[in-house]
Amino acid sequence: MRITAEPVTRLIDELNKLPTIGPKTASRLAFYILRGSKDDAQALAQAILDVKEKIIYCSECYNLTDIDPCAVCASKDRDKSQICVVEEPLDVVALEKTREFTGLYHVLHGHIDPLAGVSPDNLKIRELLDRVRLQEVREIILAMNPNVEGRATASYIHKLLVPLGVSVTTLATGLPVGGDLEYADEVTLSNALKGRRHI
Amino acid sequence: MRITAEPVTRLIDELNKLPTIGPKTASRLAFYILRGSKDDAQALAQAILDVKEKIIYCSECYNLTDIDPCAVCASKDRDKSQICVVEEPLDVVALEKTREFTGLYHVLHGHIDPLAGVSPDNLKIRELLDRVRLQEVREIILAMNPNVEGRATASYIHKLLVPLGVSVTTLATGLPVGGDLEYADEVTLSNALKGRRHI
Repeated sequence: MRITAEPVTRLIDELNKLPTIGPKTASRLAFYILRGSKDDAQALAQAILDVKEKIIYCSECYNLTDIDPCAVCASKDRDKSQICVVEEPLDVVALEKTREFTGLYHVLHGHIDPLAGVSPDNLKIRELLDRVRLQEVREIILAMNPNVEGRATASYIHKLLVPLGVSVTTLATGLPVGGDLEYADEVTLSNALKGRRHI
Repeated sequence: MRITAEPVTRLIDELNKLPTIGPKTASRLAFYILRGSKDDAQALAQAILDVKEKIIYCSECYNLTDIDPCAVCASKDRDKSQICVVEEPLDVVALEKTREFTGLYHVLHGHIDPLAGVSPDNLKIRELLDRVRLQEVREIILAMNPNVEGRATASYIHKLLVPLGVSVTTLATGLPVGGDLEYADEVTLSNALKGRRHI
């Protein structure tokens, strides 16, 4: 006996494919969409189609954009001598929220991960080296995630950048603001100790 | 400075409107859809459009269906003298999974909730009474959620059903299987005591 109509089970299956959406959440979302207005459903469907239609990679920094070059690369207010290298487009969003960085970005689209079959050739590393060679770049900030894969990727890129005579820096590690010393892990705490500063 | 392209922020906004999807999850889902294949995105968008296009209410039981009457109401194997009344279509799915119930369903589409402006007229209660009057119904099982609103709704419907001379039952309350006596709340435990059975 077919309990639920085919279009409903198909929508539940499709939502279930998304990360962090289990079968229970998928059912709840599907019935929410069913109960909602037709306009809302169409807006959601159109937004999904539009990102696939209109979004491209910026030919300079490989961030996601709907115009090429992207707004950051095309801006006259940005310091073109600094390039901050990140793993994912979401990292750019996080860094822009700080309003601290006025340079350009370079998105690698992942980190080196031999077990998952991601070699340096699968990342936008060659493109970064080309930018350093062809443009007047003074400083490269390696802003990979502070974990094993991120550090391995940063160290790989660092070795390739040294011969090009560019200054290479990385983000500070230490205690996160609002964190609790008592609950900090040993590596973070030992990094915070090593990086201690005069007040 | 526009950090993310408009189609991306629009998709994040649309996903953020869904229940249990906050801004962080919405970004993660949006970038997952962006990274995924175009076919996957189209399948998801089409599934969303299809539920709004193809899904209707069954004219008998008011469950969601793509054919009228629905598969349960149209089946010859179901006992038409029993009607199980539930709040939501998802409750039908849960009950069908037990494979215990062979009667028909009636979906109210909510519970009485004066504070939220849901009066008995907004639910499919009149339609239930019509079914009891016009069809040969022997038993009505009131399977509302075991909470205050569910119980108020069940008690309201019960009063209307009594004059029609139909047998009205409700689901047993007690300890859930796999639960822990120690952690059971007082009401559940006192219900389990009151409803104790000979083994």
